[in-house]
Amino acid sequence: MCTNFKHQPAKDGSVAVGRTMEFPDVLPWQLGVLASDFAGRSESAADGKTWTATHGVVGIGAFQPQWLADGTNAAGLSGHLLYMPGHATYAASRNDGTDIGILEVLAFLLGTCATVAEAKAAMATCNVVDFTPKEIPVPLPLHVVLHDEDACVVVEFPPTGMTILDNPVQVATNAPYLDWHLTNVSNYLTQTPTVPKSVEIGGATFAPLGQGAGFAGLPADGNSPSRFVRVLADVRFAQQPADERALLMDCVRILHNFDIVPGTIIEDAPGGQMPELTMWSTVCNLTGHQYLINSTNDPLWYSIDLASTDYSTSRLVALPTGGTFTGLAV
Amino acid sequence: MCTNFKHQPAKDGSVAVGRTMEFPDVLPWQLGVLASDFAGRSESAADGKTWTATHGVVGIGAFQPQWLADGTNAAGLSGHLLYMPGHATYAASRNDGTDIGILEVLAFLLGTCATVAEAKAAMATCNVVDFTPKEIPVPLPLHVVLHDEDACVVVEFPPTGMTILDNPVQVATNAPYLDWHLTNVSNYLTQTPTVPKSVEIGGATFAPLGQGAGFAGLPADGNSPSRFVRVLADVRFAQQPADERALLMDCVRILHNFDIVPGTIIEDAPGGQMPELTMWSTVCNLTGHQYLINSTNDPLWYSIDLASTDYSTSRLVALPTGGTFTGLAV
Amino acid sequence: MCTNFKHQPAKDGSVAVGRTMEFPDVLPWQLGVLASDFAGRSESAADGKTWTATHGVVGIGAFQPQWLADGTNAAGLSGHLLYMPGHATYAASRNDGTDIGILEVLAFLLGTCATVAEAKAAMATCNVVDFTPKEIPVPLPLHVVLHDEDACVVVEFPPTGMTILDNPVQVATNAPYLDWHLTNVSNYLTQTPTVPKSVEIGGATFAPLGQGAGFAGLPADGNSPSRFVRVLADVRFAQQPADERALLMDCVRILHNFDIVPGTIIEDAPGGQMPELTMWSTVCNLTGHQYLINSTNDPLWYSIDLASTDYSTSRLVALPTGGTFTGLAV
Amino acid sequence: MCTNFKHQPAKDGSVAVGRTMEFPDVLPWQLGVLASDFAGRSESAADGKTWTATHGVVGIGAFQPQWLADGTNAAGLSGHLLYMPGHATYAASRNDGTDIGILEVLAFLLGTCATVAEAKAAMATCNVVDFTPKEIPVPLPLHVVLHDEDACVVVEFPPTGMTILDNPVQVATNAPYLDWHLTNVSNYLTQTPTVPKSVEIGGATFAPLGQGAGFAGLPADGNSPSRFVRVLADVRFAQQPADERALLMDCVRILHNFDIVPGTIIEDAPGGQMPELTMWSTVCNLTGHQYLINSTNDPLWYSIDLASTDYSTSRLVALPTGGTFTGLAV
Repeated sequence: MCTNFKHQPAKDGSVAVGRTMEFPDVLPWQLGVLASDFAGRSESAADGKTWTATHGVVGIGAFQPQWLADGTNAAGLSGHLLYMPGHATYAASRNDGTDIGILEVLAFLLGTCATVAEAKAAMATCNVVDFTPKEIPVPLPLHVVLHDEDACVVVEFPPTGMTILDNPVQVATNAPYLDWHLTNVSNYLTQTPTVPKSVEIGGATFAPLGQGAGFAGLPADGNSPSRFVRVLADVRFAQQPADERALLMDCVRILHNFDIVPGTIIEDAPGGQMPELTMWSTVCNLTGHQYLINSTNDPLWYSIDLASTDYSTSRLVALPTGGTFTGLAV
Repeated sequence: MCTNFKHQPAKDGSVAVGRTMEFPDVLPWQLGVLASDFAGRSESAADGKTWTATHGVVGIGAFQPQWLADGTNAAGLSGHLLYMPGHATYAASRNDGTDIGILEVLAFLLGTCATVAEAKAAMATCNVVDFTPKEIPVPLPLHVVLHDEDACVVVEFPPTGMTILDNPVQVATNAPYLDWHLTNVSNYLTQTPTVPKSVEIGGATFAPLGQGAGFAGLPADGNSPSRFVRVLADVRFAQQPADERALLMDCVRILHNFDIVPGTIIEDAPGGQMPELTMWSTVCNLTGHQYLINSTNDPLWYSIDLASTDYSTSRLVALPTGGTFTGLAV
Repeated sequence: MCTNFKHQPAKDGSVAVGRTMEFPDVLPWQLGVLASDFAGRSESAADGKTWTATHGVVGIGAFQPQWLADGTNAAGLSGHLLYMPGHATYAASRNDGTDIGILEVLAFLLGTCATVAEAKAAMATCNVVDFTPKEIPVPLPLHVVLHDEDACVVVEFPPTGMTILDNPVQVATNAPYLDWHLTNVSNYLTQTPTVPKSVEIGGATFAPLGQGAGFAGLPADGNSPSRFVRVLADVRFAQQPADERALLMDCVRILHNFDIVPGTIIEDAPGGQMPELTMWSTVCNLTGHQYLINSTNDPLWYSIDLASTDYSTSRLVALPTGGTFTGLAV
Repeated sequence: MCTNFKHQPAKDGSVAVGRTMEFPDVLPWQLGVLASDFAGRSESAADGKTWTATHGVVGIGAFQPQWLADGTNAAGLSGHLLYMPGHATYAASRNDGTDIGILEVLAFLLGTCATVAEAKAAMATCNVVDFTPKEIPVPLPLHVVLHDEDACVVVEFPPTGMTILDNPVQVATNAPYLDWHLTNVSNYLTQTPTVPKSVEIGGATFAPLGQGAGFAGLPADGNSPSRFVRVLADVRFAQQPADERALLMDCVRILHNFDIVPGTIIEDAPGGQMPELTMWSTVCNLTGHQYLINSTNDPLWYSIDLASTDYSTSRLVALPTGGTFTGLAV
């Protein structure tokens, strides 16, 4: 599953967005770079959607650079596909130039839009159909989360048709639909970062055993509703980061709070019971134009400079692996 | 506060121990290196404990290399001081060569012992008195956690006198005493990494919304009892790491699960209300003789090779800071 | 607030429904009896809904016998109004003979319908408008729960218009809408009445401290989502009652699980901060034609025989109070 | 298992104590009356403890009137045996006139003492040995809770020997030992009867969905630690009862909060898997000299007047059963 959030803007105006990709290890994830003049064409229908990009895009996907599960452009828009098992009903094909597969949506939006407002309008031109490339071994019930410096929208696919929803809390996880999660926030109004006061009962004093009890009642399990309220607590109660570096470090820390220890979540997967893993996590520095990535077997956070990336060609690039702990002599 | 654990041994026999240091930012933490022939002398009494080391030690402390809150030696013993507010009653001074301050204990044990068994015997020779160096701006209610490849003991200071307890679960956090936490484990026997099955009620099917619900009921707050059962769940249900690298990465992931997002825990500190921060975390690779550290403003994990460290002198070394994200061109 | 449920049918086929009325003490609750030929006329509009009853009705309300918050008829249909703060948007008046106020709905449905199916059809003829009798000192955001021997439907008033929903779990509480609660059921799939097995960790055995831990994670607070999953757990995991008496005793026990101890929930009310109280609870014996009631200051459960009640007139009857403990000489 | 508490004294000075008996249905519970001159003699040893009563006693037990699990005397002392599986290590027999079996303790204490202070002293003369009458089909790991108008003590049997502990919170449940529970109270310091305030996030308002959310985080499962903090919350936050009747009704309501719905807790019992049931509950009106009882299949609360009870003989009296709902004509 996945956890996505926009952190509080730093005092210097920096804005960043984090997300995890929690999944069994069944996909050959790669970095995708899309040319700034990418000529997009949906494979979802004979007369699928076509577009010509105006922004270069960097993201993570598999098999084709335009099949992205996550990504951003240098204009400051980020897009994220998050899993929605049982909660994504795609449309029937119209074959009129509006059809697009869910895996192609980010290439279209990030290639052609600079803001959430533009992406909302672009999304409204799409008829998202049930198209899974033959290389993909799993079904693709997904929703789309889009962030820019200010706004966040979530695109969902309930049975009644695609919805494009403003997301005031600017965090997202997985099923059920956003509306359910927003209602669920009302069940966690007692949360506070402050340590509760001691209480006296019958002449005895009951002091808090340590710090952190202000979050009593917050659930630690990995299910989607629990991660939603947990990541929201992290963001809401965080102190405002001083600057871009503090902001990015905060995003990294928040993401790591959701790192799955291999084996602690076991699920049914195409190959039988498999551990769910935090395959990779990303931070989109929307104001500083960086794309940061960390993957499951690697201690390093890598940073791609979006401003200096070569967008002359579309290409797949291996996800870095095998980073090491940094040697230190004392 | 602090969270400490030994992870499952890897299939290649590697063993490692992780710990966090959660504290307001009131101490000038530094790396300490103690010479392999360090001549120890407790400052806690005129006739304080004296010893001569046989093992070099690397750890983290402040002001003096022998004032360690965490550390390990190349013989494969690690030691960890964890906060115990309201739960540490030190002894009266005997001034007979047995007195030692809690901040001096790790220098003594790690300098002179190779195993937990040796450390238990050495600890039994100590009269831990209430000694806080004048440089330290906070009280020091602490307990001691010791790990070697096989065993774990916890040294506590209840009002009835010092106890040296075998710790079967090999994890520790903070107050209250270990015995309370071990009893509390019995409140979490329903935990499982497996996703619960769908349930049918009145003809309707209720399917899990995602993965991870097998940990339902596990508390996410930062209080010590919650962290104890959470870190134990991480260790118990983890799949056995394949090798040393997987083991160390698991330790890093488990530690990061406890990263505090600055501002989400606010506490009373000497300078007023301050955020509690994950000041630093360490992994002691007991079989591979490494000491890994990560600190609050730095994305890198640094690795000190204990075998090649120069133990000819005792010294303070600055904690590395300012590590950066690793540049990646795509 | 309120908690409503249908219990499992007894082995002898008996069916019963329980509900609590949790409210500040601001209404002069009375029993209402409606004549079996009651000529109903909604006061909500000049041309409000009119009807002629075919069933006598017994219930609880205030001021007028036709203003019912709860009730049943001898045909085996029960109806229950439950509070929905912030979740009831009534329709604009049509003044065409379809307008009805929410407080008048039960008189209409219970007076004219014998089954949930009939009540669904009857409800569909209603335009529920925003009508609060001047005697009522509080707003009336409500939803309607209807039960017969087999079925349960919930009538809600979201902003998009009245919905009549089949309720597979046959329990209801308060806000938010039923759909949210049904999704929330999926967050409690680990519940089991069975005591968890002992676990061995590091050579130590951790046995359950007692019985009941199979419901670990179930929330005890009085909020509506918590009561929904709690009452559902009571009903789902109960053993099937042997007969009518066991069924009624089970209903009484389940209801008492939700008894509010005065002072443990404090809320804003017309007269300032007031305790929320379990003002009264009822059990509708749908197959045995009884209406059982218990009220806040009375230890007795009173039973009204619906078959022998005189339905020749409509009338208000005082709620019994002042029942005593039953003297026992030993 | 069992739940025991003293409620807040009423404004008129009335004091009462409640307790449940949660157990599989394996014992033929009966009321026991002990003569005010009862000549006690422990069967636990050839030279068991002997005593002569000065107070008549009424309670609940089985087989013999002096084998009491619960009871009170007209002097205002109540005593309660609560189950402690795995947490009761009785002493070796001394055969010196001090030996007594746990089932005989209440007959001794209630027969000879008027206050908790007297009972503490009397208890100190006892050597509680491992004696289970042959009629009793289950082991008897128990602890003793004693209440008078002011005080509460708990007598426990840890492996290190009997302890007599003042109990500041004046509630008790089952395993583990009181000390553990008192520490656990510190994990619930955020509880409040007040509804949390609405919160604004990103321009959206999140209002509480209902009342009762101030108890968020309180566990609803039936395990002993959960019941301890739950009954304490009921007592702590209750408003002070106005008078004796309100006090007794509060006690009844608190007790009913712990009513087990048959089937929702299943346990291993001598006859295989059996439901745990709330076999009976009692309220000891310590100032008004009443003993109130309610049993599992009966809706009535019976009241025994301790002042007018005939204490000339010791006897067993059947527990009343078959009480009915109170007929009401409307």
